[in-house]
Amino acid sequence: MDTMTEQATDYGSPAFGALRAASGREWQAYTRHDFVAGLGDGSLPREAYLRYLRQDYLFLIHFARAWALFAAKAERIDEMRAAAATVHALIDTEMRLHIETCAGEGIDAEALAATEEAPATLAYTRFVIDAGLAGDGLDLLAALAPCVFGYGEIGRRLGVEAHPGTPYAPWIATYAGDDYQGVCREVATLLETVAARRIGGDIRQSPRWPDLARRFGTACRLEAAFWQMGFSDAAR
Amino acid sequence: MDTMTEQATDYGSPAFGALRAASGREWQAYTRHDFVAGLGDGSLPREAYLRYLRQDYLFLIHFARAWALFAAKAERIDEMRAAAATVHALIDTEMRLHIETCAGEGIDAEALAATEEAPATLAYTRFVIDAGLAGDGLDLLAALAPCVFGYGEIGRRLGVEAHPGTPYAPWIATYAGDDYQGVCREVATLLETVAARRIGGDIRQSPRWPDLARRFGTACRLEAAFWQMGFSDAAR
Amino acid sequence: MDTMTEQATDYGSPAFGALRAASGREWQAYTRHDFVAGLGDGSLPREAYLRYLRQDYLFLIHFARAWALFAAKAERIDEMRAAAATVHALIDTEMRLHIETCAGEGIDAEALAATEEAPATLAYTRFVIDAGLAGDGLDLLAALAPCVFGYGEIGRRLGVEAHPGTPYAPWIATYAGDDYQGVCREVATLLETVAARRIGGDIRQSPRWPDLARRFGTACRLEAAFWQMGFSDAAR
Amino acid sequence: MDTMTEQATDYGSPAFGALRAASGREWQAYTRHDFVAGLGDGSLPREAYLRYLRQDYLFLIHFARAWALFAAKAERIDEMRAAAATVHALIDTEMRLHIETCAGEGIDAEALAATEEAPATLAYTRFVIDAGLAGDGLDLLAALAPCVFGYGEIGRRLGVEAHPGTPYAPWIATYAGDDYQGVCREVATLLETVAARRIGGDIRQSPRWPDLARRFGTACRLEAAFWQMGFSDAAR
Repeated sequence: MDTMTEQATDYGSPAFGALRAASGREWQAYTRHDFVAGLGDGSLPREAYLRYLRQDYLFLIHFARAWALFAAKAERIDEMRAAAATVHALIDTEMRLHIETCAGEGIDAEALAATEEAPATLAYTRFVIDAGLAGDGLDLLAALAPCVFGYGEIGRRLGVEAHPGTPYAPWIATYAGDDYQGVCREVATLLETVAARRIGGDIRQSPRWPDLARRFGTACRLEAAFWQMGFSDAAR
Repeated sequence: MDTMTEQATDYGSPAFGALRAASGREWQAYTRHDFVAGLGDGSLPREAYLRYLRQDYLFLIHFARAWALFAAKAERIDEMRAAAATVHALIDTEMRLHIETCAGEGIDAEALAATEEAPATLAYTRFVIDAGLAGDGLDLLAALAPCVFGYGEIGRRLGVEAHPGTPYAPWIATYAGDDYQGVCREVATLLETVAARRIGGDIRQSPRWPDLARRFGTACRLEAAFWQMGFSDAAR
Repeated sequence: MDTMTEQATDYGSPAFGALRAASGREWQAYTRHDFVAGLGDGSLPREAYLRYLRQDYLFLIHFARAWALFAAKAERIDEMRAAAATVHALIDTEMRLHIETCAGEGIDAEALAATEEAPATLAYTRFVIDAGLAGDGLDLLAALAPCVFGYGEIGRRLGVEAHPGTPYAPWIATYAGDDYQGVCREVATLLETVAARRIGGDIRQSPRWPDLARRFGTACRLEAAFWQMGFSDAAR
Repeated sequence: MDTMTEQATDYGSPAFGALRAASGREWQAYTRHDFVAGLGDGSLPREAYLRYLRQDYLFLIHFARAWALFAAKAERIDEMRAAAATVHALIDTEMRLHIETCAGEGIDAEALAATEEAPATLAYTRFVIDAGLAGDGLDLLAALAPCVFGYGEIGRRLGVEAHPGTPYAPWIATYAGDDYQGVCREVATLLETVAARRIGGDIRQSPRWPDLARRFGTACRLEAAFWQMGFSDAAR
């Protein structure tokens, strides 16, 4: 983890720390993607940002579905509450940035929802949802974690390092902000709770570890492909 | 429907009206159960009420899971928002009555959650959840509807007819109240929206109608059995 | 487990042995139910048997759905093959007894399928299916196990102990027979494989153990209620 | 559909015919892909074929899961039987070609299963599975249909048009053969049955039609991307 900056944190979840460490290469490729650098220094083409933002709106709908699936799987009230709060944060708070920004570009909510889903969006979102159908809540969390914590880490880093004049300051403020960082801490608590209930101790000692690490790593790969899609004409 | 009182309403949903009419006998057996009469005139034994309330707490957990499953199935943002709001109403508002009442009887939240699920609770909740696994959102709503609207109708009726001195006034006030009646109207709107998207026109003309009516009717049967369980020692 | 006869076996699965031991009382109430005794000594009223058989036909449809759900959750080819073979055994072999017996009574397949599901059937089958939605493959197997192995144990025992003249000899032969006993051994192998992959070592040492034991125990309770339903007029 | 050859058939399913016609462009891009032409005239690089075959092995595992999910959703015995037979055909018959061909190249079953899933494989398979979680059996069939019938149509066409010396004759024989063509006819019958039960009449008159057509069209897009992946180094 020698390339980690001071902004890297496990949000209080050793399980997240272990998963991130096991996918070091994929994590770097995702969180240090050129798209991310372009958000920070302002060099990202507006066209790429808008392409990303439209797909990210669709992404959030299906990501909220995945969190709702976690709630549907939860048999304990604390897990259900945490998942329901995350669904609320996604569809009421996080989507607002997308709707407002796109509205400023003349793209209304209906047009947003009618965007054709790019393969990168389909791949990532449906992979996460299927983790919840195939496995238990912990399998689903392992697939959900890279998005939640990766955006948190990127937000924290860019919140410190970004060029003051970047036009993407509102994006950075969303993920560097207290609301989103609080979501990360709550999800970290949930991950620890679920890992303790399903495995206990060091999750790397479980026979499930290779599967969990693979799910996390695949989600990182699909996140990197999602950034890359922003640069691609094919995704329009 | 000649036994319907003025308190009967379809909350603006012809689809609900059609389903209720098709299960007239089961609907009466459920909404006019002796348990309900006992809530209204105060004759219900305290022991039966507490037995019911403890199982209803477990019921609400799984009912919230069923609504979360509806959100997980929703691919449109308006359906997802409606379902997420209902999950919130269930786990934050409706459960409060149970927790407070049981606390007054010396039963804390942990004890509540540790209650052994009665067969009647298992049957009803898992039947509803399975409707969402087997079918689409409309199949799931047909199984969810009797609980939502039935409690609404009972609340409205007892809100008018109940004996002023019944010790179950807080229960009645919960379901007769504006908050709960508002939930009923929102669910009615959702049902109409989903029925229009999945069938269109009069749902009784669809080849799906017998299945939808059967799901609704089975849920009514299981609601009546749930009241009955309150009277039974076996459910302790 | 001092009441176990020589016919009791764990089919080579220590995980099943542990689960059965943890639910000793529920296991006895299920496998030593009066209905079972009546099958063995021939005293079971024909009416009760037919009531059971019709509901068991519906049970098998949903039980096959639960095994199909296991296959849908499986990400390894060996688990998928085992589950698919069990679905086949259920819908092509095990149902044949029901169809033939009921045909002999003048009840055809269509009438069988149109039988109204009893609450006991709804409770048991949907509880099992929901275990697969809420949890992983091991949670689902814990709920599936009592039916598979319990019928195997009953079959083995009655195969030895039954009165030679019992009219229920064909039922006993089905479950005492090599085909069904072979299914039990295959499911035992599957349970061991999945337990090793998801937990490893003694499953009683896992934090999941109380949940697994509760699922198994609840399924035993619901099996006993299913036999009891055969004696009840209400289930017609 | 003026580019349709005589080999085009709807296998007796007007519903399939309507879906194919609505996605004419995507259907052509999928069934007339360069990869397909290369199978027919023998010009496809061996490397591309093997890359495809390894991913297609993983594809079939998840495609079998999707069919198992259909069985899990089925509440009628005829639908369940049809789905279970398809699972069997996929994991016992269709995979054999993959295992034997790869074995001839020194790739054993374990190596096959350990192949890293390409994004194109993840996107397609999980999209199909999610159709079954989000919707009903008909939504799932709309997503399953392009693979089943497209391979059938390609097999029929190449069975007539292929260069006699193509090294891909065994692939062509698999999909042109009676076994696979029989699967297509059975799935067509199933699609008609389910469409009649869920919609009735011309499915294009249903408000569900745009969603069904979109699911089918998206699956065609993802099929074309799957062929393309065979040509790409990135998929290794």
